[in-house]
Amino acid sequence: MTWLDLLPGTAFGVANLPFGIFSRAGGRPAPPEGRAGVAIGDSVLDVAAVADDLRLPLAQMFAEPVLNRFLAAGPATWREARERLTDWLTSPAHRAAVEPHLIPLNEVRLHLPFAVADYVDFFVSRNHAENVGRIFRPGQPPLSRNWLHMPVGYHGRAGSVVLSGTPVTRPDGQRWEPGEDGPTFGPSRRLDFEAEVGFVVGVPSRHGQPVPVAAFEEHVFGACLVNDWSARDIQAFETVPLGPFLGKAFSTSVSPWVVPLDALRAARFAPPPRDPAPLPYLLDGAEPWGLDLHLTVRINGCPVSEPPFATMYWTPAQMLAHLTSGGAPLRTGDLYASGTVSGTERAQLGCLLELTRNGTEPLDLPDGTRRAFLDDGDEVVISATAPGPDGELISLGEVRGRVIPRA
Amino acid sequence: MTWLDLLPGTAFGVANLPFGIFSRAGGRPAPPEGRAGVAIGDSVLDVAAVADDLRLPLAQMFAEPVLNRFLAAGPATWREARERLTDWLTSPAHRAAVEPHLIPLNEVRLHLPFAVADYVDFFVSRNHAENVGRIFRPGQPPLSRNWLHMPVGYHGRAGSVVLSGTPVTRPDGQRWEPGEDGPTFGPSRRLDFEAEVGFVVGVPSRHGQPVPVAAFEEHVFGACLVNDWSARDIQAFETVPLGPFLGKAFSTSVSPWVVPLDALRAARFAPPPRDPAPLPYLLDGAEPWGLDLHLTVRINGCPVSEPPFATMYWTPAQMLAHLTSGGAPLRTGDLYASGTVSGTERAQLGCLLELTRNGTEPLDLPDGTRRAFLDDGDEVVISATAPGPDGELISLGEVRGRVIPRA
Repeated sequence: MTWLDLLPGTAFGVANLPFGIFSRAGGRPAPPEGRAGVAIGDSVLDVAAVADDLRLPLAQMFAEPVLNRFLAAGPATWREARERLTDWLTSPAHRAAVEPHLIPLNEVRLHLPFAVADYVDFFVSRNHAENVGRIFRPGQPPLSRNWLHMPVGYHGRAGSVVLSGTPVTRPDGQRWEPGEDGPTFGPSRRLDFEAEVGFVVGVPSRHGQPVPVAAFEEHVFGACLVNDWSARDIQAFETVPLGPFLGKAFSTSVSPWVVPLDALRAARFAPPPRDPAPLPYLLDGAEPWGLDLHLTVRINGCPVSEPPFATMYWTPAQMLAHLTSGGAPLRTGDLYASGTVSGTERAQLGCLLELTRNGTEPLDLPDGTRRAFLDDGDEVVISATAPGPDGELISLGEVRGRVIPRA
Repeated sequence: MTWLDLLPGTAFGVANLPFGIFSRAGGRPAPPEGRAGVAIGDSVLDVAAVADDLRLPLAQMFAEPVLNRFLAAGPATWREARERLTDWLTSPAHRAAVEPHLIPLNEVRLHLPFAVADYVDFFVSRNHAENVGRIFRPGQPPLSRNWLHMPVGYHGRAGSVVLSGTPVTRPDGQRWEPGEDGPTFGPSRRLDFEAEVGFVVGVPSRHGQPVPVAAFEEHVFGACLVNDWSARDIQAFETVPLGPFLGKAFSTSVSPWVVPLDALRAARFAPPPRDPAPLPYLLDGAEPWGLDLHLTVRINGCPVSEPPFATMYWTPAQMLAHLTSGGAPLRTGDLYASGTVSGTERAQLGCLLELTRNGTEPLDLPDGTRRAFLDDGDEVVISATAPGPDGELISLGEVRGRVIPRA
């Protein structure tokens, strides 16, 4: 298929072609800031450089330090870029022009791929919602009365979204634990990860104009991985009545590569049956689809969970339709995440809150240590793959972060 | 004081000097997009034009279509600009240079004054919190258990922030009212305004580095008025467990003029006593201050309320310290609002939810009509004044919006 010498099972084959932003530390014609790259094998392709050599009009939008201009250009441009890239990487005629612009991944620095406009976090894993409901609202029905009728969500802090690899400072905050006389302020004692999948909006929508389920692919460019770090003690004390705020606002990590929806066609997967039937604005037509993404969570290299994204109750298109149903506008760079992905099995739970039942059943790691919640120094890596065409695997890469104490 | 012929009682005297963004529809050297202006009397001063004529380095940052670059420049630049402006408008020697750049307000178009980064809405009026608690959580203590310990808040949708005067489309959404079999989707039946004061962040902070109460004036440039439009029926159904989302995300209106903190020195006002004492990170030093702002709310020209901002429990500096206490970074253009301002009297309540006790006691307007909530066509105007130096009034101008049905 390709003239590149890719290792079998490579994360980034020619059917993937995820976009990111990279820079080189120095050397030859090094861009001073980031520019767009596409991951292929163990390399990143300098898209602007190739397009420039070939005198393509695409060159300029890829020579920018964020993907936003490309994202805003819409599906026809996304498709054109993907077709060109596929051609460059498969047709031997292009090898001479393209090969000089392949840079080993270990020689580049990756950057946050897009300027985040608004960040929304949903809560669409039924297993997660039920597990959390049992922990935070014991004695009440595990699902809130709205949950089966809408993709429940809230706005997070866009300014706290950071690239994979950025250290995560354990936040200070107020917590009032059972048995204590009153609230205290200090470093979170129940720091957690949340394994999530995010969707990146390219094409804006007009204020006051809902985006129906059927228009999803006209607006959303692709998917990435998200770790929505959570301080459970801070969250528990602050959350009534206005929802999560500082317990979730200190850091949200995203993976460096945004995988185009086009690369995830073979991963489309029927969502679970919905009962009761969704209201008409959430009806998702003849062939609704979620995505069959297999997530893996590792703490310090030890696998702790394999959350199955295919179990999510609401689809990405339904989340977007709900988000805009009141007329809220989309902007290029809007990011919305699924909420924690949890399956039915213990080994499929997407956060420590569930894995350890709020710390009451600590987790034994294969390295011989135990965790109720995250320790300083712990590194959490969330990765994901999806079925691609012809049995190939499509990787979403990984989102990585290490917890550090406040200086 | 000034060589301008200002009317007595003008909203924008020389002690105010609020910043905004304006453009001219056409004519002489018309900027194609917005640029910075300062409101003075019935005019807007083209700051960049004067600075350019006087060959001041300030010129460039004022010739931009948003205030962000000026906001990011920090307190020394804010002070320098204010001193220059005061000098220009009071010293007869500058009259000839300045006067040609005064443009009547009715000949300009105003724009959103800054690009909004993150938008946070607090909930720091004790009267409002207690009234809302009684309505939404009957039978429980009116204040949630965290309320007296922290300024409770949540993230709103930055992309939905619009300039005063922008029509507000009544949102569709899900609501499940008592006595109904299940949720329905349609136009909100309980549309409300919320009279609030907003604070505009100029200088960013580092991720992971809290901004203490004492550093407030190093980061915050000034204040504006905010109408945080709310669909009470949508809000009521969605809000458990993750807080307000689409019931608040369809539109948030802000006033066109940002009043510098320096113009509000005479309006500083001791906050109410706090009991229990705030935790150390919220202790506000020897001379804590709120602001003695007098808000007025009008529906279709009829005064309906005069909310007193001086009654707010937490100060602007405490809100900022709390927001950043876990390390969340500030960015230029961050906007945080106080939440609804409500006093103890019925004529001081800042939203219809409280004024009509959730619609059960409709409000008789002086024009002979009644309102439980807002009708299509209703125009809400929130204005505010504060005491200035030497008995002058400082005006925050107004935030205006008319409700329109969805097309």
